[in-house]
Amino acid sequence: MSNLIKPRTLSGFMELSPKDQVLFEEIRRTLEKVYQSYGFFPLDTPVLEHSEILLAKAGGETEKQIYRFSKGDTDLTMRFDLTVPLAKYVALNQNDLVFPFKRYQIGKVYRGERAQKGRFREFYQADIDIIGDGSLNIVNDAEIPSIIVDVMQSLGIEDFTIRINNRKVLNGLFGVFGIANDHAADVLRIIDKVDKIGVDNVKKELTAPAEDGPALVPEESVAEKLLEVLTNKGTDEEILALLGQYRGQNETLDTGIDELQQVLYYLAGFGVSKDKYRLDLTIARGLDYYTGTVYETTVTKHPEIGSVCSGGRYDNLAGYYTSKHLPGVGISIGLTRLFYILNAQNYLNRAKSAPVDVLIIPMTDDYSEAVRVSTQLRNAGLSAQIYFEKKKFKQRIAYADKLGIPYCIFLGDDEIAQHKVALKDMASGQQETLTADEAAARILEHKAGAAAEKCVVM
Amino acid sequence: MSNLIKPRTLSGFMELSPKDQVLFEEIRRTLEKVYQSYGFFPLDTPVLEHSEILLAKAGGETEKQIYRFSKGDTDLTMRFDLTVPLAKYVALNQNDLVFPFKRYQIGKVYRGERAQKGRFREFYQADIDIIGDGSLNIVNDAEIPSIIVDVMQSLGIEDFTIRINNRKVLNGLFGVFGIANDHAADVLRIIDKVDKIGVDNVKKELTAPAEDGPALVPEESVAEKLLEVLTNKGTDEEILALLGQYRGQNETLDTGIDELQQVLYYLAGFGVSKDKYRLDLTIARGLDYYTGTVYETTVTKHPEIGSVCSGGRYDNLAGYYTSKHLPGVGISIGLTRLFYILNAQNYLNRAKSAPVDVLIIPMTDDYSEAVRVSTQLRNAGLSAQIYFEKKKFKQRIAYADKLGIPYCIFLGDDEIAQHKVALKDMASGQQETLTADEAAARILEHKAGAAAEKCVVM
Repeated sequence: MSNLIKPRTLSGFMELSPKDQVLFEEIRRTLEKVYQSYGFFPLDTPVLEHSEILLAKAGGETEKQIYRFSKGDTDLTMRFDLTVPLAKYVALNQNDLVFPFKRYQIGKVYRGERAQKGRFREFYQADIDIIGDGSLNIVNDAEIPSIIVDVMQSLGIEDFTIRINNRKVLNGLFGVFGIANDHAADVLRIIDKVDKIGVDNVKKELTAPAEDGPALVPEESVAEKLLEVLTNKGTDEEILALLGQYRGQNETLDTGIDELQQVLYYLAGFGVSKDKYRLDLTIARGLDYYTGTVYETTVTKHPEIGSVCSGGRYDNLAGYYTSKHLPGVGISIGLTRLFYILNAQNYLNRAKSAPVDVLIIPMTDDYSEAVRVSTQLRNAGLSAQIYFEKKKFKQRIAYADKLGIPYCIFLGDDEIAQHKVALKDMASGQQETLTADEAAARILEHKAGAAAEKCVVM
Repeated sequence: MSNLIKPRTLSGFMELSPKDQVLFEEIRRTLEKVYQSYGFFPLDTPVLEHSEILLAKAGGETEKQIYRFSKGDTDLTMRFDLTVPLAKYVALNQNDLVFPFKRYQIGKVYRGERAQKGRFREFYQADIDIIGDGSLNIVNDAEIPSIIVDVMQSLGIEDFTIRINNRKVLNGLFGVFGIANDHAADVLRIIDKVDKIGVDNVKKELTAPAEDGPALVPEESVAEKLLEVLTNKGTDEEILALLGQYRGQNETLDTGIDELQQVLYYLAGFGVSKDKYRLDLTIARGLDYYTGTVYETTVTKHPEIGSVCSGGRYDNLAGYYTSKHLPGVGISIGLTRLFYILNAQNYLNRAKSAPVDVLIIPMTDDYSEAVRVSTQLRNAGLSAQIYFEKKKFKQRIAYADKLGIPYCIFLGDDEIAQHKVALKDMASGQQETLTADEAAARILEHKAGAAAEKCVVM
């Protein structure tokens, strides 16, 4: 037919194969379980909001990247993160919520960026935030990274580092070094590039005269001192000691050092192993949103990926919508990107992608025994599918094979007469005649072994 | 401040309280588990698609209701159901998919209808479909309602009826009664209203002369005979016997009766109890999409709600995108609407809405013992939250109380010295000093009891 419409999916919109989707759901479910085990409520906000709400804070860059349109006389925008909707939600329901309010949200967000490899226009974020009413104990800033460690390890990812810093330390140091307040954001942006372009280039950029005035850091000796502190590669204790030398000169700096020390103290208390985190004073997070602790998480073998999980402490969540003071701390996992990377790097455990534990293949025209056995297996906690199509035996077996289903059960006249099933282990090729209960036990045993053996991520 | 933006959510967009969201997630998770236990793959397609794709089939009504806009030179539409994206997906991946392809998808869809009570512009659908390559055994048409029974019972809903019909039976009868082909859709639409307006009014509408020609059913005696068959209130066997009288006059009718008989035969084979389904020849489903078996599911006490779960058999899923012949059968649960109704009717088990099994309240300034106990409880399979804020004792207890958390653990100097915890059962008010392991066992026991006692829906 010539008038067929060519099926296609928008570029930058991830659409997985069925087997990959099984693995994605496993990862998503793992995140949910961990988040729930720490007392976070689920939250689900609309994909669409009034533009006025979502763009309360947004600057020029955000506006360019969003999906915004009108329907009737309503100006609508698709959410571009899960934080602004959270702010709206908390402001809207402030009288009904119980604080500290802990919520997780795993949902799609939309950014109309130019599509490129590994960049998505529709992608999942998996956020947790703890919101206080008026105040929020600093120990929460230590619990958040301990949850991230739990998440990563539950997925099977062991080789990662959470880098921790505090924005007050950075701002305080700028004060000490006489860097103007309105230069702070630019200085941070340049320092943020130190891993990419190196210390020397950062220093050059910092001390280069601006078109319309002095350099961000006019004196080279100051830039050197600043970078000596910030890019110090010592242990956490050594870096804290170095910072300690600047104590007493700037109140913000002193508060920042105190907060950092407490967060590191409690992190140890949370049983987080020392090799999973480190103090890194170059971490700034581009956003001018964070005011205290900030986090980035990198996979050790793949620094080029950048941070897979970032966040921090903010002074006030919902200042655009309410005069109530709502400090918080949170973190966001870019789930679609993380999955894309794990998949591209062959880190996913494909043995986990079967849709079902066992395929039941009836060899007679009557399906009633197959139905009976399938119900029995499901009641035993297994998933079971009956192959109903009238295809050749070879094609039926090929179905299980292609889908990676670990077991088949054949039900012929003989088995039915004996009230037994023929169970075939697809990996070994071995076949045995058993009762349905024995078959269920066998498959459950295999399943428990496979579950213990490996996580979703290898 | 006068320049605050008033926080608000778009009308027709459901946004739940944290406790309601917990129950919603429970329901969603129950659906996923049941679907998975039958071998359905998860699928996740984009919310946005090329308008050309989504509107390949759509008529005037659909076009009015959709969210459609342009970004750059791309014409975009938000999905209004999960079936059209499935059709695109299967056509696009036809060479990689293994057929029969069984998939579930639980996702949000968008319809810009006028918002009214219980009507949503953004809502979840929970679909399952089985797609065959060239052919698909009729026994699948019986498995689908058996899965719906499993879903409803897993949720705790016992009082429902799946009404089953076959479009070939209807079309065949129209042939026998000489009703013109191009009148069939109108006749079905009128018959579909029989429960609302009664047999007499349906007959009147059928025999009323049209503005520009004859009545849909010109002879009153024919309309009477038609309605006598269709609105018969006999048993399934009696209705089939009545239909049998018209056998041999129309091929489509004969095929339809055969299919209905097979579906009912296998439904019994699937162990579906006779009180959960019945043949109802007035069920037509408004869509001209279904070609064989059709289903509707009503909650017996609330017929006014209409169908909470509908679907059927279609000849060809993706005819707009591929010449490959892909018959299928599926069903869709309007999850947001179902939740809204269950909530409004007080059918939800609010005892299940706590975010966490136990709240740990440290009574000392050091949290390390609280952290240790929380980890121990989590390792035992419980969810546990530490209350970190420096509030008065009364406020800490009130936190657990307001959130409905069933247990609190207090950790004072005495407990810590004895390596014990003080466990308080919030319902009974009883408090005991136990080891953390004993406390975990106690809470797990309570949890197992609560799980056995009641489902999400009462």
